[in-house]
Amino acid sequence: MKETVYLDNSATTKPCEEAIAFMNKALTDNWGNPSSLHTIGISAEDLLISCKEACAKAIGSRSDEIYFTSGGTEANNLALNGAVLSRAKRGNRIITTSIEHPSVSEVLKRFKEKGFEVIYLEPDTDGRISVDAFRSALTEKTILVSIMLVNNETGAVQPIKEISETIKASGYSPVFHCDAVQAFGKLPIKVSELGVDLLSFSGHKIHAPKGIGVLYRRKNLHITPLTFGGGQQEGLRPGTEPVPLVAALEGAIKALPDPNKKLPEMAELFKYARTKLLETSLVELNSAETALPYVLNISVPGWRSETLLHFLDNKGIFVSSGSACAKGGTSPTLSAMKLDRKRIDSALRISFSRFSTFSDVDKLCEAITEATTKLKRA
Amino acid sequence: MKETVYLDNSATTKPCEEAIAFMNKALTDNWGNPSSLHTIGISAEDLLISCKEACAKAIGSRSDEIYFTSGGTEANNLALNGAVLSRAKRGNRIITTSIEHPSVSEVLKRFKEKGFEVIYLEPDTDGRISVDAFRSALTEKTILVSIMLVNNETGAVQPIKEISETIKASGYSPVFHCDAVQAFGKLPIKVSELGVDLLSFSGHKIHAPKGIGVLYRRKNLHITPLTFGGGQQEGLRPGTEPVPLVAALEGAIKALPDPNKKLPEMAELFKYARTKLLETSLVELNSAETALPYVLNISVPGWRSETLLHFLDNKGIFVSSGSACAKGGTSPTLSAMKLDRKRIDSALRISFSRFSTFSDVDKLCEAITEATTKLKRA
Repeated sequence: MKETVYLDNSATTKPCEEAIAFMNKALTDNWGNPSSLHTIGISAEDLLISCKEACAKAIGSRSDEIYFTSGGTEANNLALNGAVLSRAKRGNRIITTSIEHPSVSEVLKRFKEKGFEVIYLEPDTDGRISVDAFRSALTEKTILVSIMLVNNETGAVQPIKEISETIKASGYSPVFHCDAVQAFGKLPIKVSELGVDLLSFSGHKIHAPKGIGVLYRRKNLHITPLTFGGGQQEGLRPGTEPVPLVAALEGAIKALPDPNKKLPEMAELFKYARTKLLETSLVELNSAETALPYVLNISVPGWRSETLLHFLDNKGIFVSSGSACAKGGTSPTLSAMKLDRKRIDSALRISFSRFSTFSDVDKLCEAITEATTKLKRA
Repeated sequence: MKETVYLDNSATTKPCEEAIAFMNKALTDNWGNPSSLHTIGISAEDLLISCKEACAKAIGSRSDEIYFTSGGTEANNLALNGAVLSRAKRGNRIITTSIEHPSVSEVLKRFKEKGFEVIYLEPDTDGRISVDAFRSALTEKTILVSIMLVNNETGAVQPIKEISETIKASGYSPVFHCDAVQAFGKLPIKVSELGVDLLSFSGHKIHAPKGIGVLYRRKNLHITPLTFGGGQQEGLRPGTEPVPLVAALEGAIKALPDPNKKLPEMAELFKYARTKLLETSLVELNSAETALPYVLNISVPGWRSETLLHFLDNKGIFVSSGSACAKGGTSPTLSAMKLDRKRIDSALRISFSRFSTFSDVDKLCEAITEATTKLKRA
């Protein structure tokens, strides 16, 4: 079997042993309905409590501020809908960026169509939005701010803390939501330091299985539920909780390295990759040096992303053209960064996990070089 | 270890070997993002296709009519919201029953609060609603009908086919949604014979893990999505699909016995349980003889449900007081059936799986008899 070089970890990650072990234990030992009053139910409920504690510890929150969803998309939808619907009488302005994930941008697009005023902050050439631009956009009528912590296409880290300080200084009180799907487990996160009211993350980006996400909701913040039912999770997100996935998430979180210790290592790998890729003289870098060292967006001008992707695929090297969620569509982030068309059309997203190696980078560079000798130019 | 008699299968079921095996294979071999364009993504997408085919076969639909959700609650919410929001201009009448699951009744309650006219059909003493009453309630302005196939508390089977025939004969065109969570895998289901437009079911009631549900949507029926994002599942239900759970669902569906062959066996067990329980002279039966032979609601007048439940729990016998989703609240179904308070307060729901045995029933009867000699009357 061909050796695999998986460099598409921003799309999804391989479930880790710990996640799989926790999940299987839940499937055989704690398979009850957490709402059941008998001991089989209670043993399932115990897993929910335990995972909430692990999530809370990971983001510096209380465990009663943690709500399970089916993934990042639902967490973002619940946060945005919940915040807007419960505050529509106070104002109609929403501030976001032009580089959010579709699970944010598509929701806000609907609010715009309904008459809300949605302000899109634009990124600079490094992919970061400006705190000054945010300050100018913020008004008393702003009911919601939604800005991601790490961009899914470039890894650009947004100034969330500075934005929350700007909100605080203004005296206004919009709800501040942060999509931390690409940041969780990689950057150290403390919700109190970030100053956010709502924060979303997803299991399958940190080596838990697909199907589980989390919404952090600051204590006493009221938001309207998106769905209604049997009253589980205080009615904010009803439905029988997905206990095996919750257990897997706990396993994956417990297996996470300390981001503060892991980041310097990843920075070395990131620097190595940047250097090696530039040495091919074929590549331009679209991610800034300041990006999260897990995401490296590049272009290979002259060759189309899809052609390169399939060539690499045949070599057992897996990368992404844009983000998985756009599935072949034009990259919203690179477009917002005003890169020229040729660069956008030849873009590849290399995304690392904590298991990625220098050797993976070497193989990628070799394969890109080979591709440009064998493939026809676009 | 105490031997376990689990008779709470309407709350949740123990994951079967097949579901666990399919899931683990997906976790190790097909863990890619189905939206990724490379082979690791495609191998995950293959599992989605394969499970859709299994679901379609099980309900006699096409596989492009199958949408994955996080469970029955989300499937019901998506169906009802989607149908009402896309048809609110055509009328404002909704017909349902007073014995729906909270994931239906709580959604419709919100529509009622918003000014929709919601008609609640009442059950008879057998727990069944009347087709004549439905016919009288149906008007041209009716945009949605939502009626469950099998009631979660009593097992009463509702006349879905007769209702769809009534709709057809009327010439009106409401969307007809059916919550089949308690019926799927137990009753033979063919959507074309039932004549429904939308049908919900859930994995964890048929020995798949919690966290996966299905909405069948009739081809070309337009309904508004509940969430927005990366366009997965044709945009009707976006978000990275929970591939391991989807695989587990396929495993569980493939392990299901043919309902037509299994039903006579279950009817024997059901009859045995009814006879044995009546022989204790302590029990009244709340489920009719015509109920689905997997759900037997009983009362033990003089003893409170919770007290009995905990006594049985200590004996390793697991049943429910009402439904898990009501978690200790008053039963909406038994109240709608106008049972007297004493009978409601002493109700227990016994719910079988295909693995339940005559010996389970014997142990239950013995334990109930023992309980009434040892526990104080309420």
